[in-house]
Amino acid sequence: MAALTEFELIDTLLKPLAEKAPGAFALSDDAALLPDLPPGEGYVVTKDALAIGTHMLASDPPRDMARKALRVNLSDLASMGARPIGFFMALCLGEDTDQVFLQDFVRGLTDDTALFDIPLMGGDIIKHQGAFTVSLTAFGAVNRGKALRRSGARIGDSLWVSGTIGDGALGLKAAQGGLPDFDNSSTDALIHRYRVPQPRVALGEALLGIASACIDVSDGLVADIEHICNASGVGCTIEADAVPLSDAAQAVLAERPDVVETILTGGDDYELAFAVPAGQESLVTELAQQTQTPITRIGLFEAEPGVRVVDAEAQPISFSQAGYRHD
Amino acid sequence: MAALTEFELIDTLLKPLAEKAPGAFALSDDAALLPDLPPGEGYVVTKDALAIGTHMLASDPPRDMARKALRVNLSDLASMGARPIGFFMALCLGEDTDQVFLQDFVRGLTDDTALFDIPLMGGDIIKHQGAFTVSLTAFGAVNRGKALRRSGARIGDSLWVSGTIGDGALGLKAAQGGLPDFDNSSTDALIHRYRVPQPRVALGEALLGIASACIDVSDGLVADIEHICNASGVGCTIEADAVPLSDAAQAVLAERPDVVETILTGGDDYELAFAVPAGQESLVTELAQQTQTPITRIGLFEAEPGVRVVDAEAQPISFSQAGYRHD
Repeated sequence: MAALTEFELIDTLLKPLAEKAPGAFALSDDAALLPDLPPGEGYVVTKDALAIGTHMLASDPPRDMARKALRVNLSDLASMGARPIGFFMALCLGEDTDQVFLQDFVRGLTDDTALFDIPLMGGDIIKHQGAFTVSLTAFGAVNRGKALRRSGARIGDSLWVSGTIGDGALGLKAAQGGLPDFDNSSTDALIHRYRVPQPRVALGEALLGIASACIDVSDGLVADIEHICNASGVGCTIEADAVPLSDAAQAVLAERPDVVETILTGGDDYELAFAVPAGQESLVTELAQQTQTPITRIGLFEAEPGVRVVDAEAQPISFSQAGYRHD
Repeated sequence: MAALTEFELIDTLLKPLAEKAPGAFALSDDAALLPDLPPGEGYVVTKDALAIGTHMLASDPPRDMARKALRVNLSDLASMGARPIGFFMALCLGEDTDQVFLQDFVRGLTDDTALFDIPLMGGDIIKHQGAFTVSLTAFGAVNRGKALRRSGARIGDSLWVSGTIGDGALGLKAAQGGLPDFDNSSTDALIHRYRVPQPRVALGEALLGIASACIDVSDGLVADIEHICNASGVGCTIEADAVPLSDAAQAVLAERPDVVETILTGGDDYELAFAVPAGQESLVTELAQQTQTPITRIGLFEAEPGVRVVDAEAQPISFSQAGYRHD
């Protein structure tokens, strides 16, 4: 950061990301104005911070760090069924955060703000003693009273997930050298999923008023279903064999059956897990097709408290840890 | 952090701060819902991050770090004339951030959320490699179209500031041992002002529709008036002798005339600097009295570009640096 001051960094690199948001005042004021929403809609806000060494690896390309930071926040909006409106970003530059890093970071951010049509509206850039950290606050709009929550699951609702589960945690393992015996095409796919998750924004919006509860899988499938169960006052049984796996995860699991625990409790998936009332399943399947999002039924909410994972013979599988936590 | 996990920290210490915000869902969901605003009002958002070693000293009490983090964001809201609504907070814990630190930090936050009647609505807690960092995003409400901006100052408007200028920068100097020859009563007062600024929320709201431009003094008086001038397309002359000083700052200045530069360019004041159209000065004086905020006229906006500081004989004073920057 010898060359660019905070003001120059904002002026040269970040201002273009704010062009579509008049209330951002070209990032030139102390604060920004959020746009008016249509009648009946309210603002949803989420804030997730990511640090190198905790949520990102120093070996991750900076452009992927930017995309992950934006996408995990978009995933939180998706889990409430919200339409993305804008975001604020605080960058905490470490001593070794140089201009090459920042330019690559902003390149990733530029790509994803265009892809998800979400403008940067403001923020802050500071230096600190330590590793690079990025803190994002993202805003979405949702019909008041309809926002998806963790707390609405009922006994008899079925449990569904989007996409595939376990790739993020396996990708982290691979990036850390923990899967040395697999070919690069598998591990590269997993590492990419760890670095660049796919927020399910369109599916979240489509599920508004239909899913009875929703969460994004960040702490790990089992832990996140526990969050739904605790908030809803129900229990759940997950059928391990029904949990959708990518080709790469299947290839790893075939050789290393022990990774089933990583897959089901590892976290960093950023897929949606949601409860569907009986009778709504065909509608949900149709909505998933319309939004081009693969979804899979993997379990059932029940009266018995707690989360159970069962195998193909309905025998319980137990794990040494309930979930992975970024403390 | 051996003892408290992120979930426990939120449950035991932070949840009470969210009680007054129903849309925060007791900090239990992925995102929060902002409350509806009265017709005509819109949301203003600001985001400022603070790190130990950059904006706070490791010797500052953690409770004051919390208060400063909240107050600098409230000051940004005040500079737009916004009424505080709620805030989100990301804590990046360093390796040496222990439970004693966090409990003291939350004590300060608890005091100030009550004092300023602003609930915590959500956030994130992560660990990272480095010093403790806090990133806040604060929300306020303001009448659409009336929000105070940097860009409205006109030739002939007078320049005013709230409170006293220079205490923050002198306090930092004192805390770092740079004012060894002064008695503790002076330096303690300055250090307190550095650690716990006073956001001018009531004054900012009162100035809505009256002040033609406004900013909070964070980069330094001269640099921040430059921001107003650049955004407004005008220039400004500041009368150094008119700039209001605290008793402690006056005592230091009497012995050390060279600190005039620190006072006028040092930053960290978090007072409001604002432009008042001719004819509105008595109204502004009255509003300041109603909000119990001392204000002082210190200069005039003019056609000649740039910011000039003049002494009692109208001779220009020059400084080696235009402003202090937290890069």
